[in-house]
Amino acid sequence: MKRYRNGEIWGFESQVPPSPDGGVVLGVDGGTTSTVCVCLPASCPLPEPLPVLSRAVGGCSNHNSVGENAAREWLEEVMAQALSEACCSRSSVRAVCLAVSGVNHPSDQQRIINWLRQAPAFIHGYDLVDWLFILLINSFVGKLGDNEYVGILWRDKTNKVTFYVENDAVAAMASGTMGKLYGCVLIAGTGTIAYGFTEDGKQARAAGAGPVLGDWGSGYGIAAQALTAVIRAHDGRGPQTKLTKNILDMFELSSPDELIGWTYADSSWARIAALVPTVVSTAEDGDEVANKILYDSVQELADSIIAVVKRLRLCGEDGKDIFPLVMVGGVLEANKRWDIGKEVVKCISKVFPGALPIQPKVRNQP
Amino acid sequence: MKRYRNGEIWGFESQVPPSPDGGVVLGVDGGTTSTVCVCLPASCPLPEPLPVLSRAVGGCSNHNSVGENAAREWLEEVMAQALSEACCSRSSVRAVCLAVSGVNHPSDQQRIINWLRQAPAFIHGYDLVDWLFILLINSFVGKLGDNEYVGILWRDKTNKVTFYVENDAVAAMASGTMGKLYGCVLIAGTGTIAYGFTEDGKQARAAGAGPVLGDWGSGYGIAAQALTAVIRAHDGRGPQTKLTKNILDMFELSSPDELIGWTYADSSWARIAALVPTVVSTAEDGDEVANKILYDSVQELADSIIAVVKRLRLCGEDGKDIFPLVMVGGVLEANKRWDIGKEVVKCISKVFPGALPIQPKVRNQP
Repeated sequence: MKRYRNGEIWGFESQVPPSPDGGVVLGVDGGTTSTVCVCLPASCPLPEPLPVLSRAVGGCSNHNSVGENAAREWLEEVMAQALSEACCSRSSVRAVCLAVSGVNHPSDQQRIINWLRQAPAFIHGYDLVDWLFILLINSFVGKLGDNEYVGILWRDKTNKVTFYVENDAVAAMASGTMGKLYGCVLIAGTGTIAYGFTEDGKQARAAGAGPVLGDWGSGYGIAAQALTAVIRAHDGRGPQTKLTKNILDMFELSSPDELIGWTYADSSWARIAALVPTVVSTAEDGDEVANKILYDSVQELADSIIAVVKRLRLCGEDGKDIFPLVMVGGVLEANKRWDIGKEVVKCISKVFPGALPIQPKVRNQP
Repeated sequence: MKRYRNGEIWGFESQVPPSPDGGVVLGVDGGTTSTVCVCLPASCPLPEPLPVLSRAVGGCSNHNSVGENAAREWLEEVMAQALSEACCSRSSVRAVCLAVSGVNHPSDQQRIINWLRQAPAFIHGYDLVDWLFILLINSFVGKLGDNEYVGILWRDKTNKVTFYVENDAVAAMASGTMGKLYGCVLIAGTGTIAYGFTEDGKQARAAGAGPVLGDWGSGYGIAAQALTAVIRAHDGRGPQTKLTKNILDMFELSSPDELIGWTYADSSWARIAALVPTVVSTAEDGDEVANKILYDSVQELADSIIAVVKRLRLCGEDGKDIFPLVMVGGVLEANKRWDIGKEVVKCISKVFPGALPIQPKVRNQP
């Protein structure tokens, strides 16, 4: 595959027609398994349905999982692919919203902006200082049809480009509330995070710190616990489980000892998390160990929501106020009989009867 | 620092005198934090006290923690340093015993042997096939004075060199039993493993599968749980704990949010495990969260021992037979009032009254 790097000339740019009036905006949803970029015309407000010019899909852009180089390359790659497919050059870009998992601190935002501003610049011939002038004062969060969630926050007061870098929970929230940043959102995919917003702009989060720091409700967390259960059953520390046969069959391994080498050969989070459907089907098959892992993960996910809602008092003084609870991610969607998302909602409804669960219809990636 | 790689000429070898009669043997103890190599004269049986010619210390050689390249470089480096200090060339080496953490499967043993046999060979001018002819039939396990533990298993029937690659638990066992491979050994350092041997040569192990696969009693496991507790306290999912202030002070960070970046900037197991003394001192200071983490780790470590002892029936039919229980590693040694090793022994004695705890006097590394 041809790789487009920001520090290089992109061949296709010399062949595209002059930029459309008003230019374009890019929205990037960067997850721990895949990264999606959409390209839209730059106009405010955006019409409904949204005129998506192009859509590109790449790998993990969470630097905590795959390292800075790989994360950066995927961000650049999906933006280049989206521009290429929309027949636009970098000079037509007016705003970029990057909603990326692993953005936990202002230094993470700054790092991503630094990646994009390295000379030769994302937009050739522009003055970098001008170019990065902060335009973001008001916010507009766009829901991209029924099948995309990408938050775009920008203001086209001038023709300058701006970058808006946020945790992907911000985009996930917007996808469920038609753009309004209010309520609580839970992402449970390869990673997990709960994020909340009050109507007056206060924010809070829980979890989202990755597997070393205990995100046990995530797809990675569920899968790692299943692998651990297989090791424990094998060496006599834990009960026997059907997970052993099902996981070994999946990888065509003959002994749990071989799982150790498999695990560390490449411990990218997404690779481990790919085991979740096997854990779910093993639980559906009545295995007690797999069921306990899933019930524990439900409690972990519910705890994250509860922590955010309490800190922001989204439930009001009496605990009964209505608030949106947006739920996205493969762990909450990909189940059959064993429905993790439904169990989380059950837990939450007991504590906060006003929680209004929303599962946005999002396009399955890729 | 000058790096010695196996595939290169080692300058010092041209200056050393001809090999001593009988040559030398190398014993390598490869841990997840550091790797030690000692060089001894090749004679069998070895005299007491052991005439250690040289000793060299390097970094982590567990490929699961730091990757294959770094692990291989440290193994080569400590062997070269030990030979250099003993004024010996590679041609004087008769046997090498590598007892390395992360050796869990025959493929791990083969990988290390392959590293060492890559041309130009460890021993210049030798025929590689001859050179690797397997000499190991009987075993001799040497205890290197009061302050080293390295198992050496070899037989000098011919003048050929042989390599013996084992998990470091084998060397740890030998260090506590004057060389006899019988009983149970627990290592709890950066990683943890329990290993056992019956008198008729049966072996069993528990844990030792690294942090993704649930080695929660290890130094890494204790430290990761402490970091998780800080994140949970910060985002409202867990109780407040003095670990927050103590860990942030240690790293000169101002907020738990910054711990996420710190953790993933370099998640080598030893770097995380270095937090254990802080967890212990926080527990000694009465912090409930830190105490719970340590008590949980005690139970995890005890569970590993129990699993091995039961599988090998080291405790006999009535559960009361006497057997050696060798305990090594920083987690079991480095405590003051809160003594993790002592608590593990308490647990084990209730289940197996015949367990005979042995804490070998080993030289603190480096």
